[in-house]
Amino acid sequence: MRKSFLAFLVLLLALPLVADEGMWLFNRTPNAIFKQRYNFVPTQAWLDHLQKSSIRFNSGGSGSFVSADGLALTNHHVGLDCLAKISTKGHDYVTTGYYAKTQADEVKCVDLELNVLQSIEDVTARVNASVTPGMTTAAAQAARRGVMSAIEQESVQKSGLRSDVVTLFQGGEYHLYRYKKYTDVRLVFAPEVGIAFFGGDPDNFEYPRYDLDVCFFRAYENDKPVHPADYLKWSAGGAKDGDLVFVSGHPGSTSRLNTLTHLQFFRDVAYPFTLTLLRRREVLLTNYAQRSIENDRRAHDELFGVKNSRKAYLGRIAGLQDPAVLKIKADSEAALRQKVMADPQLSAAYGDAWKNVDAAIAAYRPIYTEFRFVEGGLAFNSALFQTAKTLLRLAEESTKPNGERLREYRESNMPSLKQGLYSEAPIYEDLETVTLADSLSNWLEVAPNDPLVQQVLAGKSPQERASELVRTTKLRDVAVRKTLGEGGKATVDASTDPMIQVARMVDARARELRKQYDDNIAEVLRQSYAKIANAQFKTSGGDTYPDATFTLRLSYGTVKSFSENGKDVASSTTIGDTFEHAADHGNEGEFKLPKSWMEKKTLLDNDKTPYNFVMTADIIGGNSGSPVVNRENEFVGIIFDGNIQSLPWDYQFDDRQGRAVAVHSAGILDALRKVYGVPGLVKELTGK
Amino acid sequence: MRKSFLAFLVLLLALPLVADEGMWLFNRTPNAIFKQRYNFVPTQAWLDHLQKSSIRFNSGGSGSFVSADGLALTNHHVGLDCLAKISTKGHDYVTTGYYAKTQADEVKCVDLELNVLQSIEDVTARVNASVTPGMTTAAAQAARRGVMSAIEQESVQKSGLRSDVVTLFQGGEYHLYRYKKYTDVRLVFAPEVGIAFFGGDPDNFEYPRYDLDVCFFRAYENDKPVHPADYLKWSAGGAKDGDLVFVSGHPGSTSRLNTLTHLQFFRDVAYPFTLTLLRRREVLLTNYAQRSIENDRRAHDELFGVKNSRKAYLGRIAGLQDPAVLKIKADSEAALRQKVMADPQLSAAYGDAWKNVDAAIAAYRPIYTEFRFVEGGLAFNSALFQTAKTLLRLAEESTKPNGERLREYRESNMPSLKQGLYSEAPIYEDLETVTLADSLSNWLEVAPNDPLVQQVLAGKSPQERASELVRTTKLRDVAVRKTLGEGGKATVDASTDPMIQVARMVDARARELRKQYDDNIAEVLRQSYAKIANAQFKTSGGDTYPDATFTLRLSYGTVKSFSENGKDVASSTTIGDTFEHAADHGNEGEFKLPKSWMEKKTLLDNDKTPYNFVMTADIIGGNSGSPVVNRENEFVGIIFDGNIQSLPWDYQFDDRQGRAVAVHSAGILDALRKVYGVPGLVKELTGK
Repeated sequence: MRKSFLAFLVLLLALPLVADEGMWLFNRTPNAIFKQRYNFVPTQAWLDHLQKSSIRFNSGGSGSFVSADGLALTNHHVGLDCLAKISTKGHDYVTTGYYAKTQADEVKCVDLELNVLQSIEDVTARVNASVTPGMTTAAAQAARRGVMSAIEQESVQKSGLRSDVVTLFQGGEYHLYRYKKYTDVRLVFAPEVGIAFFGGDPDNFEYPRYDLDVCFFRAYENDKPVHPADYLKWSAGGAKDGDLVFVSGHPGSTSRLNTLTHLQFFRDVAYPFTLTLLRRREVLLTNYAQRSIENDRRAHDELFGVKNSRKAYLGRIAGLQDPAVLKIKADSEAALRQKVMADPQLSAAYGDAWKNVDAAIAAYRPIYTEFRFVEGGLAFNSALFQTAKTLLRLAEESTKPNGERLREYRESNMPSLKQGLYSEAPIYEDLETVTLADSLSNWLEVAPNDPLVQQVLAGKSPQERASELVRTTKLRDVAVRKTLGEGGKATVDASTDPMIQVARMVDARARELRKQYDDNIAEVLRQSYAKIANAQFKTSGGDTYPDATFTLRLSYGTVKSFSENGKDVASSTTIGDTFEHAADHGNEGEFKLPKSWMEKKTLLDNDKTPYNFVMTADIIGGNSGSPVVNRENEFVGIIFDGNIQSLPWDYQFDDRQGRAVAVHSAGILDALRKVYGVPGLVKELTGK
Repeated sequence: MRKSFLAFLVLLLALPLVADEGMWLFNRTPNAIFKQRYNFVPTQAWLDHLQKSSIRFNSGGSGSFVSADGLALTNHHVGLDCLAKISTKGHDYVTTGYYAKTQADEVKCVDLELNVLQSIEDVTARVNASVTPGMTTAAAQAARRGVMSAIEQESVQKSGLRSDVVTLFQGGEYHLYRYKKYTDVRLVFAPEVGIAFFGGDPDNFEYPRYDLDVCFFRAYENDKPVHPADYLKWSAGGAKDGDLVFVSGHPGSTSRLNTLTHLQFFRDVAYPFTLTLLRRREVLLTNYAQRSIENDRRAHDELFGVKNSRKAYLGRIAGLQDPAVLKIKADSEAALRQKVMADPQLSAAYGDAWKNVDAAIAAYRPIYTEFRFVEGGLAFNSALFQTAKTLLRLAEESTKPNGERLREYRESNMPSLKQGLYSEAPIYEDLETVTLADSLSNWLEVAPNDPLVQQVLAGKSPQERASELVRTTKLRDVAVRKTLGEGGKATVDASTDPMIQVARMVDARARELRKQYDDNIAEVLRQSYAKIANAQFKTSGGDTYPDATFTLRLSYGTVKSFSENGKDVASSTTIGDTFEHAADHGNEGEFKLPKSWMEKKTLLDNDKTPYNFVMTADIIGGNSGSPVVNRENEFVGIIFDGNIQSLPWDYQFDDRQGRAVAVHSAGILDALRKVYGVPGLVKELTGK
């Protein structure tokens, strides 16, 4: 009796995996599931090839090598960060697009870093050995941080590769990831934003779609294109309805392991807070952008990001506000807890995890707003302030042993940190003033009686103070930043730059909050979720995958239509449909096609080449730009979105309606050939 | 010694009136000030003529009669409510504009009501006599409400006119206003929204401006145009720099008498709350509007209102977050309190007022959010829900004696209430669902553990519940509303309409909150501000004006340039400048001129006719559409906005930079003649 009851529970927990769920580690792929569901088991060589063809864009996305000469494909909206930074008032790469006819014409990005995963090593035992039973959570955290930094530092010295110890299963395991890093990255081809993001915010997270959301870069080393040993072969035919496909990319973060209490905290506190902030920024930036064409250009990238996040959070909160969705979570959590409690060993090892999560959340609530404003930087929505803060802390943290530093200042992260700190990316005084004034005003709203706010404002209005700070700081000058960044603590301590002074004013309180958060919340959650992950692992009898961590993962699924409001939505659209969609919206605003497309209207109107398509593969933000491959490991498409029904995937996968959305490999070729006439690029991709 | 100190204080308090401050009552105009500053004293006939030429638009604005045949001029953005309601998918009056060539072509508005003030009578003594010393605040409130309803009811019976007892000086005085009412109002001429609101949200509350923000209606009675005894003569030349002008209109509300604590409550609680709500609606409606041309049409009017309010509140909070601005308030308040305290009689009569305001604010804070969501309707952003609530309360309140009812259900207000309740204005199911779902979701965010929310949601997600309610209620049908509205309590009690059921669910709690608000907050504030108003009156020795109450007021000022960022901004723009302003913004989006104007570009490019202009007159929201007249009482312009620097006028007038913005009478004629070619309308206005 008891056994069959347990078996039933196992089945219940395993149920979600009946769907094409999972963001799997490349060193732990669910081959049994692949075999059972699709009668396909990838070989190690197959996996290695895909892994080393996959690219992480550190501006926040994924991509892949698609030619022997280092051509790197990602989404236009991932490339946008670079496009915005190289644009000027006179030359707007975002609006007009770009094609480099020769390699000499390829434009170097300001501060883009690409990472390609070379190896994974499980270092869990060594990390855990640093923590001894009697330790306080703070001491445990320091010990763990120390050994992680040491492992990374050793690895960098040994391999010369970027080395990150990645926390998986919320601390259940620790893996060392070694990356080949590229920092000389150049723009090869970008279409106009009008077709890359055709349909704009209204169509974002929707399907059907008609977007050429692609952007080609080339990786260089020593001023020469790189020749990666692994790159994806282009499938001219691409994928069709019913095909098995794989997605290799870098999902940013998920909350699948989160307890019900934690999700309720998201629903009632964190998500409403974040949405309020995003809406505020959306209105502010829209207003700024509408003032002139140049303003619109300056704010475009940030505004895109804000709208994109706002829509994503709206989808997530909608799921959490649906009692039916929460019930699934509540039921599966209850089943797991019952199973743990029914076994004395499991109960002793993991039984307190849920209570501890509750305690961490309870500790977070009272400091949540202040933590996000003062340490999280919401009080200072300004690149100049963030630079000042980084300079201040860099000076301070560098005086400490590597293992005792705030994690972002560990030695192994220094090159990436300085790449950002000394970036030549433009900082616009007017936009900085607008965003800093608004965020100071917001801080004053949430903490009108906080003496720290008053000290920062120095008797002035937020508007006046922001304007003064932005006008008088010298931190826009990269040389000044370098002098301070390389000058050490004495130099920074002696600085009278007004923005550094403000960063100094808030740093003590910010560090207190950070310490409270790290010790009483993050560390408690880490330990508790490690237990829950272990409990789930041990009771479900095998194959599981960790929550997303912006590290490489393998997803899989089928190209498949879905049903919405009783209607079937076909799995793919065609190039020709684009014109009809534009006309349905009056060819105006977000639905206005660029000139290059309108000029080819007659040619393309009836073009049946597949353009965008959907599949059941499990993705999330960060997967943007991920290559989609077929059984033969050929490039058949590039992920650029998920539909509205996929947004709750953050905490619960469900492929009844949820779908990942991609641009089809055939559609990309068709557009390159017929609209843009770029035979050089087409030949590099296809050999023809 | 003592005397001279007091004299100094009087001077200090009187200082603001050195500026062109004041929204004066028509029965108490500051003739001494007019005389002293401008050597001009309007006669009683002059005042009567202006009063009876002025119109209140009950959709929320002002206007004036400008022809012998009942032509009523207001702003396009005031007429917008009517334009939106008469528009259909096939005919969009907002986008395309309209001109009725003959009276037969004039289009009847759905539910527009115009009021023209006929007389003012001071009834303070009778109202105050109803309150006896020992009464509780609740009893005092009930007594006052009773006598006010009685006065109104008697007046309606005697005069047949709409009769409102208006609370002035926050309860310092009560005046009976009698209005001639027009409910058959027809559209004569509206320009395209693209020129009426040229520059859109970016230009709103800014100057210089280039907007033809006008709209002509005609008042009818018995299916014939009315012939008002008083209407304004059109000045073809209009006003020029330096001219004295008067503004006669209906400022909605101001907070000039508010204490420092009260303003801090606005700054820290009410304004941030309201801005968060407005931004949320702006993002929601923008998203909805962008989905299709038809959606854009449906949401236009509401979205305009939301953006307009958002920008106004931003200006207000910016002022309150400026320590320099608050200091002026703090100083003048301290001076007044000192003066009161220095005089035993004043101290005994008014000394406790500030403390009592503090207590009322303290009582408001803990119920603020729930009050605004549950009784204020923020939980139900839906015309159908508001209809259900009105039907439910109408049935209940009608069973009570007139004096005991909630104020909006008093007999004298019934015709206006029913005009709205039985309005044929379209209600769009999709838009209703979007706004109701979002507001339910918002309520769930602010009160996740409130059983009432759960009861209303009935186990469904906000989206699902909103969709179900909007689909199944029958209240879109005006006949159904009339049956319920005229059927009395038994009929409404028997109704199983789902929206009525929801209104019923929340009504008990909503009424509790309303009672707490009315008794412990509104009434305490009313009594306290009556004392403060009296104290100010008695210590300042004369001319004062009450805070705005959406009743007729007279303002005055000079047509005058101002200085901004060190540059002089000229007092008027020209018709020709419009094309340059459009070109500066790429002739796109909000800066795209309508076809009618672009076709006349060559003709108008160098047209130097004055178009928009600014003056120092004291205005606020509700003044939109107010006529501007010269010494000769001729129409020289129409108010449509204030600049950014005028936004803090809500709580403090300051004409160093703050200006009211108007369309010039010459510019209107020029556009009517050259762009629209409407000789009939021009002849009616000018006789030529």
